[in-house]
Amino acid sequence: MNRNTKISKELRSVEALIKRDFSKENTISGLYKYIFKSNGKKIRAKLCLTTSSRTKNKEKIKLASVIELLHTATLIHDDVVDESPTRRGIRSVNNVWTNAHGVLIGDYIYSKAFIYLVDIGNKKILKELASTTNDIAQGELVQLDAINNVNITLNKLKKISYFKTGRLFEAAAKTGAIIANENKAFNYNVSECAKNLGILFQIIDDLLDYSDSKKIGKPVFQDIKEGKVTYPFFYSYKNANTREKKRLKDLLGVSRDLKSKDLELIKSLEGIKKTKQLAEKYHIKAIEYAKKIKNLDIRKEMIELADTALNRDK
Amino acid sequence: MNRNTKISKELRSVEALIKRDFSKENTISGLYKYIFKSNGKKIRAKLCLTTSSRTKNKEKIKLASVIELLHTATLIHDDVVDESPTRRGIRSVNNVWTNAHGVLIGDYIYSKAFIYLVDIGNKKILKELASTTNDIAQGELVQLDAINNVNITLNKLKKISYFKTGRLFEAAAKTGAIIANENKAFNYNVSECAKNLGILFQIIDDLLDYSDSKKIGKPVFQDIKEGKVTYPFFYSYKNANTREKKRLKDLLGVSRDLKSKDLELIKSLEGIKKTKQLAEKYHIKAIEYAKKIKNLDIRKEMIELADTALNRDK
Repeated sequence: MNRNTKISKELRSVEALIKRDFSKENTISGLYKYIFKSNGKKIRAKLCLTTSSRTKNKEKIKLASVIELLHTATLIHDDVVDESPTRRGIRSVNNVWTNAHGVLIGDYIYSKAFIYLVDIGNKKILKELASTTNDIAQGELVQLDAINNVNITLNKLKKISYFKTGRLFEAAAKTGAIIANENKAFNYNVSECAKNLGILFQIIDDLLDYSDSKKIGKPVFQDIKEGKVTYPFFYSYKNANTREKKRLKDLLGVSRDLKSKDLELIKSLEGIKKTKQLAEKYHIKAIEYAKKIKNLDIRKEMIELADTALNRDK
Repeated sequence: MNRNTKISKELRSVEALIKRDFSKENTISGLYKYIFKSNGKKIRAKLCLTTSSRTKNKEKIKLASVIELLHTATLIHDDVVDESPTRRGIRSVNNVWTNAHGVLIGDYIYSKAFIYLVDIGNKKILKELASTTNDIAQGELVQLDAINNVNITLNKLKKISYFKTGRLFEAAAKTGAIIANENKAFNYNVSECAKNLGILFQIIDDLLDYSDSKKIGKPVFQDIKEGKVTYPFFYSYKNANTREKKRLKDLLGVSRDLKSKDLELIKSLEGIKKTKQLAEKYHIKAIEYAKKIKNLDIRKEMIELADTALNRDK
């Protein structure tokens, strides 16, 4: 079996494990089935299966499932936090049910992940993922400060991207390496590569939110509608004169989609260009670390993941 | 030092540990300080310190802190779920800040508890508390089915009381016994005692919600206002004729406090009396198991806790 087939097959095992195991209570099974009906890209689980690909230890399927469960729980809580009506093209939990259901099924899934983690029973992995979960919550909390805050610093935006997204990418790669008993250098290189890849992934996410809805097939301008200052807005605002700053400020929290003249303003102030440049910077960093990975298969896969993250258009 | 002084001193150490350790990010430290400003009763931490009282292992302070952190996280999420404006006599997090802050600081505190748990590094304790957290979320989810549901069964109500409250009492006592390396019989007796004590605690909570607000010094009729069917309503409804059933149904989800004639109806249909009888049943069970505990000090404290839970009027 070639490597790609092997990892795809393992990803199916992850899906099967997640879908198999939930409470028989009606409300819970209904929610659970709805949430895991659509299979996301599972890029985090894939990362974990890539860095653990040299072990035959079956526990890596459980570990990759933990990564996916943690990720899913944060998405569900995010949708409550942002009051998002949709997720992955279907209605969000808080939209079909209520905020209460979103909060509680998120807690249910978080704790399910910890149950699996305890089963795996590796203290280093437990430590890494407990601290990761805490960092993600921190990142999301700090992001609340970015709402309607035109004075947010670039450093704060980078911290948010790392904590809310880069951190779980990093932990997925690192715990994969730990379960496969890889050496320190390998562990360090895949972790740093994944961390930068995750930040890159988030920057592109912020960028795609300023693109043409028809092209990417999902709602756009969500961040600016929520009043959330992300990189494109940040860079434009920095380059703006007083009159332009006023125009930009008025866009934060608007209930409508941006008009083309608004988007033109952001483009002319280099918000899009500078964000792309930042993404490229993180792509270079990710590749740098990937190239230090001695195993050629894993190196290649990490580079592919970084390239995909940079070039994705949805 | 006598035992009471010792446990009180340990509870101060729990408070100190919790208050000492949090992120330096402004938003987070502000939330954290607000949440832990008032010192609750800490009955769950006390339970844990009681069953672990025969060990000198300093980790029990951390364990009791974990119990308190988990409890606090569930309260904060509960307040989002129930849209409660107050908690412990002060405004709730979701009221001072927003639902988003409540969800995220709850996640932050949950994961902080898991970080401490991993530090303690006892697999049995990890397993017990991961499964407890999952059960609490299940209990809260099942409780959503009790909203505006006059056909809920007594068994379902008991399951809710166990999962959302009894379970953490049980785990507090059990993990205390584990960390103190107590024998199997001790472990079983304190766990069963605490489980019944926790259910009793919840039943009294449901009962107090149907009492005179001036007497208990906190808002009452919250459950019925939220449309939540709890024991007093359940028993009254069961005894009601068609006309009374209609009157009771109309009370679910009212926005005002109950009038005295409404409360009279519930009383005359024995909702209060039967709930008290149920509480007494669980009190007897808790005492039964307490009496099997050989250590006389711990036995006495468990009996005192059960008596306090039954007789509290606020």
